[in-house]
Amino acid sequence: MQTSLRTHNCGELRLSHVGQEASLCGWIQRSRDQGYILFVDLRDRYGITQVSIKSDEHKEIYDKARKLGREFVVKFTGMVVERESKNPKLPTGEVELVPTSMELLNEAKLPPFLIQDDTDGLEDLRMEYRYLDLRRPKMTQNFETRAKVMRATREYLDSKGFLEIETPFLIKSTPEGARDFLVPSRLHHGTFYALPQSPQIMKQLLMVAGMDRYYQIVKCFRDEDFRGDRQPEFTQIDCEMSFVGQDDVLDTFEGMTKHIFKSVANVDLPDFIRMPYKDAIKYYGTDKPDLRFDCKIVDLNDHLGGTDFSVFNKLIENDGLIAGIVAKGCASFSRKKLDALTKFVKEPHMGASGLVYVKYNEDGSIKSSVDKFYSAEQLQKLGEQAGAEKGDLLLIVADQLHGKTRKILGQLRLHLGRQEGWIDEDKWSVFWVVNFPLFEENEETGALTFAHHPFCMPDEENLKFLYSDKEEDLKKVAAQSYDMVINGNEIVSGSVRVHQPDIQERIFEILGLSKEEQDAKFGFMLKAFEYGAPPHGGCAFGLDRFVMLLTGESSIRDVIAFPKTAGGRDIMMDAPAEVPVENLGELGIGLK
Amino acid sequence: MQTSLRTHNCGELRLSHVGQEASLCGWIQRSRDQGYILFVDLRDRYGITQVSIKSDEHKEIYDKARKLGREFVVKFTGMVVERESKNPKLPTGEVELVPTSMELLNEAKLPPFLIQDDTDGLEDLRMEYRYLDLRRPKMTQNFETRAKVMRATREYLDSKGFLEIETPFLIKSTPEGARDFLVPSRLHHGTFYALPQSPQIMKQLLMVAGMDRYYQIVKCFRDEDFRGDRQPEFTQIDCEMSFVGQDDVLDTFEGMTKHIFKSVANVDLPDFIRMPYKDAIKYYGTDKPDLRFDCKIVDLNDHLGGTDFSVFNKLIENDGLIAGIVAKGCASFSRKKLDALTKFVKEPHMGASGLVYVKYNEDGSIKSSVDKFYSAEQLQKLGEQAGAEKGDLLLIVADQLHGKTRKILGQLRLHLGRQEGWIDEDKWSVFWVVNFPLFEENEETGALTFAHHPFCMPDEENLKFLYSDKEEDLKKVAAQSYDMVINGNEIVSGSVRVHQPDIQERIFEILGLSKEEQDAKFGFMLKAFEYGAPPHGGCAFGLDRFVMLLTGESSIRDVIAFPKTAGGRDIMMDAPAEVPVENLGELGIGLK
Repeated sequence: MQTSLRTHNCGELRLSHVGQEASLCGWIQRSRDQGYILFVDLRDRYGITQVSIKSDEHKEIYDKARKLGREFVVKFTGMVVERESKNPKLPTGEVELVPTSMELLNEAKLPPFLIQDDTDGLEDLRMEYRYLDLRRPKMTQNFETRAKVMRATREYLDSKGFLEIETPFLIKSTPEGARDFLVPSRLHHGTFYALPQSPQIMKQLLMVAGMDRYYQIVKCFRDEDFRGDRQPEFTQIDCEMSFVGQDDVLDTFEGMTKHIFKSVANVDLPDFIRMPYKDAIKYYGTDKPDLRFDCKIVDLNDHLGGTDFSVFNKLIENDGLIAGIVAKGCASFSRKKLDALTKFVKEPHMGASGLVYVKYNEDGSIKSSVDKFYSAEQLQKLGEQAGAEKGDLLLIVADQLHGKTRKILGQLRLHLGRQEGWIDEDKWSVFWVVNFPLFEENEETGALTFAHHPFCMPDEENLKFLYSDKEEDLKKVAAQSYDMVINGNEIVSGSVRVHQPDIQERIFEILGLSKEEQDAKFGFMLKAFEYGAPPHGGCAFGLDRFVMLLTGESSIRDVIAFPKTAGGRDIMMDAPAEVPVENLGELGIGLK
Repeated sequence: MQTSLRTHNCGELRLSHVGQEASLCGWIQRSRDQGYILFVDLRDRYGITQVSIKSDEHKEIYDKARKLGREFVVKFTGMVVERESKNPKLPTGEVELVPTSMELLNEAKLPPFLIQDDTDGLEDLRMEYRYLDLRRPKMTQNFETRAKVMRATREYLDSKGFLEIETPFLIKSTPEGARDFLVPSRLHHGTFYALPQSPQIMKQLLMVAGMDRYYQIVKCFRDEDFRGDRQPEFTQIDCEMSFVGQDDVLDTFEGMTKHIFKSVANVDLPDFIRMPYKDAIKYYGTDKPDLRFDCKIVDLNDHLGGTDFSVFNKLIENDGLIAGIVAKGCASFSRKKLDALTKFVKEPHMGASGLVYVKYNEDGSIKSSVDKFYSAEQLQKLGEQAGAEKGDLLLIVADQLHGKTRKILGQLRLHLGRQEGWIDEDKWSVFWVVNFPLFEENEETGALTFAHHPFCMPDEENLKFLYSDKEEDLKKVAAQSYDMVINGNEIVSGSVRVHQPDIQERIFEILGLSKEEQDAKFGFMLKAFEYGAPPHGGCAFGLDRFVMLLTGESSIRDVIAFPKTAGGRDIMMDAPAEVPVENLGELGIGLK
């Protein structure tokens, strides 16, 4: 870090430097004037070093330094000495600098919030003064971690023969699910480039080009209505490899993830389980379960029929689904707590009609909200089937739609996990969910649409159904696709791709894309695939969210240097902004 | 490279593998059917391996393999055997694969041009079928080199404490010299994001944020009329560091350049000279001289006056400039060659009024186009002054404008260097040009504009002139700015930045930006600088051109995976393209 202005940085000096002369540059974190001595905490990216100036020994420096405000930029040169009262919390806490000269490098206005981890700055203010917000040590550490993740990624992929190749940002608008950002062309009025939602097509063309193994850490763009923590521009670790099957891809990126965890967080991850999508839904009601705690969904249709409880009887008759989860040690839940859980599952976006509970008390007694329909013996047997023991609470949800029952229980499971502290925050749950369905129903139109994207290879077992006319058959087709789930977040998504033009065209046909639409939208890709496409597959990591998890942050905005607000605005630079009307004229466009 | 489909790649097998079973996947480069035996060259990114199939031994494979066309994708499994007739040109040339099974992985249409280094494909066709063009080994190597350059860059910068930080792509339109690409905002109709021409402002804000050392290998965008080899999107290695002076930056990036040359090309570069801009212009007539050959401009005003040659007399009287270059060993140039040089310097974009020559023949005689005005003795003396020896040719240009004289001689020097083979293609000329002027005259308007960009720090020596009202004083202000020149190409450009608000505002004032314009365009930056900006500086490498030089290519299109044509088009995917009018409506814009 040595430059012509400094000999060391502010995190570097130790006892071993005592007796040496040193020059430090940094920002004034704070000053404590004790009359006869002034202590200045000088901060830079690397740490804080105490500078101490005695009024009788260095009167001139003392007088000047007293006037330094917070965040002034200063250079001190002097001797490194051992501190009398050491600060074990600071790596530099055993020493201090006694300056023989001081240079004011720049002044600073008083910052609108405190530059420290527990800042008093609210989000909007922090965003407007992002360059001050980033000075907080926690933020600096986040970007150091982010850089480490990128470095570990490249180390691993370079060692495996992956080539880093840049793909273009000014591409053709292609329908990949979300809305494209458009860029008007000045040289060809009436036409537009699009910013890539991902380099999906490009990377597949690189496989056709024989590049064999490709990666890129790259910005992607989606003009969505920003839900929650989404950003219009986000970063992917984008990868693709040739002459592979699904397991090759999974092995490779499992290895990479382990390497990153080890390099960045010194965590040794165990081998990742590969959970079929069907099992994830069946046991956890979600395709991204958090496995840091147990608690599986148990199907209960077989154990709840044949009584006077007509609601359940009817559901069983009509092939609905009754299922539950066992909340370990929760038999003692109060009425209030149970009511809150009932309220939770009945919320409009969940839509349960109710929540049945059975308490298996420590004393052997059983208490349930359906006591009048089931005998204690029946409930005892039910508990055995469900795996409930003394002290446990069985929570039951039922709905005609299987998916709905499971989804509600999955949410309830997670809710309880968080509420009851079942989640060990020091634990990592990292695994693969594999073989997603190829198609799913569009919730609005009911038409079949692609679950991941239209380039996923059907699994060989179900390939035959691809040529069926029946929607129920088509829904059986699983894809050679996979997500990596970390602590309940989908961090990686990928698939083995279709490399045969005939299968690709059949998929487009099922998606309702006419030959003309296929040609207009993907013509160049379909054409490329006629010239010798190798079998290939890959995946993309959501870097922002990945780093968010590794840094323990709860928002991706805390791991992006200059993020946008929920409305897609950059408050600091005031973008987007109006532009002179003549600039629009040059582009052949006007405002409507 | 091992996957479930292959055990080795096509560049991997050696004598040491003989006797092992191997599976290879790749593309058919070519087949030679000799009736009893079929030789197939199988190609992938890593090389070519010969597969040989005897018709009597493996009849079934032979029959199938005979039908494989060029670029079909095939998997062969069999035994590695020693070749009878070895091919020393191929790294795999000592062995061949004798397959016991063959699997056709994909068919291929006949490519529209030959997939080999000396292809018959013209540029447009290569661009349309870029995925085939990239299969040519030379192209593959280019991208391997590009990836190596990026890796070496990161290795070096990581080791020096630089943090890789991503800056946003959707920013505010700021005037940095060229035209911005604009991105209409859907959520805020009538407003636009701009794509960054460079992360200049962002990286300076990162320094204000205390990030200390930043880098990024990043795409930048300029909506220019694409002259020659320019691309609308291009890649920069973008760097910035805090608490530095000019020499710190030069030392750091000289070290990085040496590291890249050593890692990628195994070239040990000597220390870089640091040539003042004034000297570059004075001796080479350009700010990016090619120093792979000598031949400096010599000023001749003092040696050509006092005769009857009124043209020169007048120029000397009026402080014009007469100067020349010595073309070593060129005294024997024919009249035709001299006429061609005269034509060259008189071309409209050069604009010389003529070219004077003096031949210092091997036999001691002197022959010149101005014989009648100068005695042999005078010419002899002139030669001595200019450093011409027997066998040399002195070429003289004169113009009232000093810059024009020097520019013409600089171009003539380069022209001769290329024509006469003075340039050693195995040699590298890498050095710094430093201390560019801060301001220059806009050629069209005559107004002062920034030479690099408006954030360059004036050098301390000339800082006083910054506060003068006189344009001639302002032109004296040199900047702490620098270019790295490689083989006559400007590859790196940078400066120490202004970190004091008052100096920055004075520069904006000189550039004619009112307070309102400053605020509208750079307000957020000027505001940031009030909160404690450290002294900082940096630079940006033009990665595309850098890789072009390292790969020995003559166009940057050969080192960009999917480049645009001169008209900004991507022929392969047909972009930019029309978009549905409803998409424009969503953005609040319409076509004019």
